[in-house]
Amino acid sequence: MELRFADRMSNVSASAIREILKFASTPGFISLAAGSPANETFPAEALAEITARLLREQPNATLNYSVTEGYTPLRDYLKKYLKTNHNTGCEGDELIITSGAQQIMDLACKSLCNAGDVVICERPSFVGALNSYRSYGAQLVGVDMEEDGMDIAQLEEVMDRHPNAKLLYTIPNFQNPTGICTSWEKRQKIYELAKAHHIMIIEDNPYGDIRFEGQTIPNIKTIDDDNIVIYAGTLSKVLAPGLRIGYCLADRRLIAKMIVCKQCSDVHTAILPQMAAYEFLTQHDFEGHLDTIRSVYRKKAHFTMDLLNRKTADFLTYHPIEGGLFLWCKCTQFDMNDFCTKLAQNKVGVVPGTAFCTAPDETSEYFRINYSSPTEQQLIDGVAIMADIAKTM
Amino acid sequence: MELRFADRMSNVSASAIREILKFASTPGFISLAAGSPANETFPAEALAEITARLLREQPNATLNYSVTEGYTPLRDYLKKYLKTNHNTGCEGDELIITSGAQQIMDLACKSLCNAGDVVICERPSFVGALNSYRSYGAQLVGVDMEEDGMDIAQLEEVMDRHPNAKLLYTIPNFQNPTGICTSWEKRQKIYELAKAHHIMIIEDNPYGDIRFEGQTIPNIKTIDDDNIVIYAGTLSKVLAPGLRIGYCLADRRLIAKMIVCKQCSDVHTAILPQMAAYEFLTQHDFEGHLDTIRSVYRKKAHFTMDLLNRKTADFLTYHPIEGGLFLWCKCTQFDMNDFCTKLAQNKVGVVPGTAFCTAPDETSEYFRINYSSPTEQQLIDGVAIMADIAKTM
Repeated sequence: MELRFADRMSNVSASAIREILKFASTPGFISLAAGSPANETFPAEALAEITARLLREQPNATLNYSVTEGYTPLRDYLKKYLKTNHNTGCEGDELIITSGAQQIMDLACKSLCNAGDVVICERPSFVGALNSYRSYGAQLVGVDMEEDGMDIAQLEEVMDRHPNAKLLYTIPNFQNPTGICTSWEKRQKIYELAKAHHIMIIEDNPYGDIRFEGQTIPNIKTIDDDNIVIYAGTLSKVLAPGLRIGYCLADRRLIAKMIVCKQCSDVHTAILPQMAAYEFLTQHDFEGHLDTIRSVYRKKAHFTMDLLNRKTADFLTYHPIEGGLFLWCKCTQFDMNDFCTKLAQNKVGVVPGTAFCTAPDETSEYFRINYSSPTEQQLIDGVAIMADIAKTM
Repeated sequence: MELRFADRMSNVSASAIREILKFASTPGFISLAAGSPANETFPAEALAEITARLLREQPNATLNYSVTEGYTPLRDYLKKYLKTNHNTGCEGDELIITSGAQQIMDLACKSLCNAGDVVICERPSFVGALNSYRSYGAQLVGVDMEEDGMDIAQLEEVMDRHPNAKLLYTIPNFQNPTGICTSWEKRQKIYELAKAHHIMIIEDNPYGDIRFEGQTIPNIKTIDDDNIVIYAGTLSKVLAPGLRIGYCLADRRLIAKMIVCKQCSDVHTAILPQMAAYEFLTQHDFEGHLDTIRSVYRKKAHFTMDLLNRKTADFLTYHPIEGGLFLWCKCTQFDMNDFCTKLAQNKVGVVPGTAFCTAPDETSEYFRINYSSPTEQQLIDGVAIMADIAKTM
C-alpha cells in the first residue's frame, strides 16, 4: 500500500548523530561523534547491588505499573536537590520525571505549540531538541551565538518580529554544540525579554553539574518570579544515560498537561531505573561521584585540547571549555561535509556543523568533537587521522 | 503568566484509570480498576540475578546510550518469536522496540495522522490508545462491538462515510474493556475492508498470549499480504509492565518514520530492561513462564466469575472470558457514574464505562473489573461491598 504520512513528518529526518552511532560499532571505528558520557564514570557495581536488592525486596513496586509523574521519593529528592544546590524552584512549580530530558522537549512542545508557532533557539543548537520541535510543526527561528551567549539585539528583534513565538530554547551551560556558557548578564536579559514578550523559556541544563573549572553561573530559573522557565534536568550525564531519566521543573499547570501527554506516550518511565537512581543518589556519595566525574572530564578535556593544540593548530581553531562534553572546531579552508565524510571513510566520526543548524539552507564551518567517550588512545589516533586528512585536502 | 496551551490539548484529559491508580495506595483501598498483571507472576528473582550480572559483565552496554530502534538481539528474538509462534510477520516488515505498547499508538499516529484525520475504533475501547490519537487531533469514529467483534455492516458504512480515515484500531484478543475476542471470520472481513479502503490497521495484542482456555484465533497480521497491519506487542502482560517494553512489527517504511519520532521523543527505551528481558526470554523457560501465568489467571478469573455469579447476579451481568485481564460488567438499573463514585467512597475502585467511550457525550451501562491484580481476599471483599452498595441504591 502507498503510505500517506502526516504532514509534520516532512519537517524532520533521522538525527545525523544517532545515525553515526550505528557505525560506531564497526571494528576500529573511532567515534568522536556521540554525546555519550565516559564509560569509566558509570557506577556499575553500585547499581548492580542496588537493582538486585530492589528486585528482591520490592518485586511488585519495581515490576508493576507505576504513576505517570514519576517515583515520588525521586521527585522529592530532585526538587530538594535543585533548591539546595542550585537555588532553583519557585512557588507554583511542580516536577515530573521523564524518559530522558529529550522527552521534556517533546512533552513541553506538544503541550504548548500549535503548528506554525515559533520556537526561538540558539544558532547552532542541539539537533535532538530542534527535531522534537520540528516534529510538532513548530517554526524554528535561530539567534546567533556570541562568545557569551545569544546576540541580545538580534534576540529582541526576533521577538518583536514574531508575536506568535511560544518558546525560547536555550542551553546556558556548555551549550551543545558550541560549548559556550551564557553570561549571567545575558541570562538576566534573556529572562526579562522573554517575560516582556510572554514567551516561555526551556532552560536545558544537562551539563551544568559537570563544570570542571571556573565559576558556576546561576540558572535562569533562579530569577523566575513568573514561572515562565521550564527547567530541564537529566541524570544521563551525571549517572548513566541508559537509565533514561530526565526531570522537568515548571509551572504546575504546564506539568499537569505534560503528565497527560506522557500518559499518551509511554504511561510512565521504567520504574526500576528510577528506584535505582534514587537509591544511588541518596545512599551513595553522590557529591563524591560528581567530583570523580569532574576530575575524569577535566583530565580528558585538557588531554584533548593539548592534542588539538599540537596536531591541528594549522587548520582548525576551537572554543576552549571549562565543562560539558564537546569541543566546537572551526575550520574555514575545507568544505565541511566533504571533510567529515572523508573522516568517516577513514573510520573517524565527528558531527558536521550543519547537523545543528536551525534552517535547512544554512552552511557551517564547524564540526563537533566529543572527548568524553573515546579513550585517550582513540583520541590520539583520531586526531592524527584528522591531521593526515587535512594535509591531503 | 497566562499559559497558552496547544489546541490539541483540548482533546484530551488525564486518564481516569491512571488517576484512580493514585488512590490505590490509600490504606484499605481495593483497586479493581487497574490494568495490571498479577504481582505473583513476576519473575523477580530471575531478573535480580540477570540485571546484577549484566551490569557487572557489560557495564557500558547497560548504562550508556543505545540505538533508537532497540536492542538488536531482542528485536531479532521477537521477530522470530512472532513468526514461529504466531505465523506473524511478512516480507517488507521491520520491528522496533518501544517504551511500552502505548508508545506504538503515539508513534504510529504521530507518523500517519494529520489533525482531523479519522481513526476508526471499536466502541468502547482502550482509553490510553484513544487519548493518544486524540492528542494528535485525530477524529475518533467508533464502531459498536458485538459478541464476536465489530459490527461489520457499521464498519463498512463508517469507512464509506470517512474517506479521510487513516487508521483502524482494534484489540482482537480479549478486548479492553469488553473482553471480547473478534472471530476469525470478522478478522478476515476487517482486513479486506481496510485494504479496500486504503486504511492501515493497528492490531493491538497485549493479551493474546494469556489465553487460558479455548482456541487461539490467528492474528489479522497473519494474512497481511499488503503490509497494512501495524502489529503492537508488549512484554507488560507476560513479563512485567514496569520494564516498559513494547514492540511493533510493521511496514519498514513506517517503522523508519516511527524511529525518527522516537528519536524526538525519548531517544531509546531504557537499555537495561531490554537486555534483561532478552536474557530472561532466551535463557529461562519462557514457555513454562507463560504456562504459569495462564494457570494463575485461569484460577483467578474463575474465582472472580464464581464470586460474581453468587453475589451480584441480581443486579449485573458480565461477558465470561477465556483470557485477558478484565470483566466487563453490565448493570442497567443504576446511574453508572453514581455507582462507581459510591464504590470509590467505600474504597473499591472500578472503571466506569464512560472512560472507554469514543465520543464525549456517550453514556454507558457498564463498568470494568480487573481480576488479576487484587488478591482473592480483596476480590471477596470488593465484590461484597459492591453487592452491599447495590442494595442501598
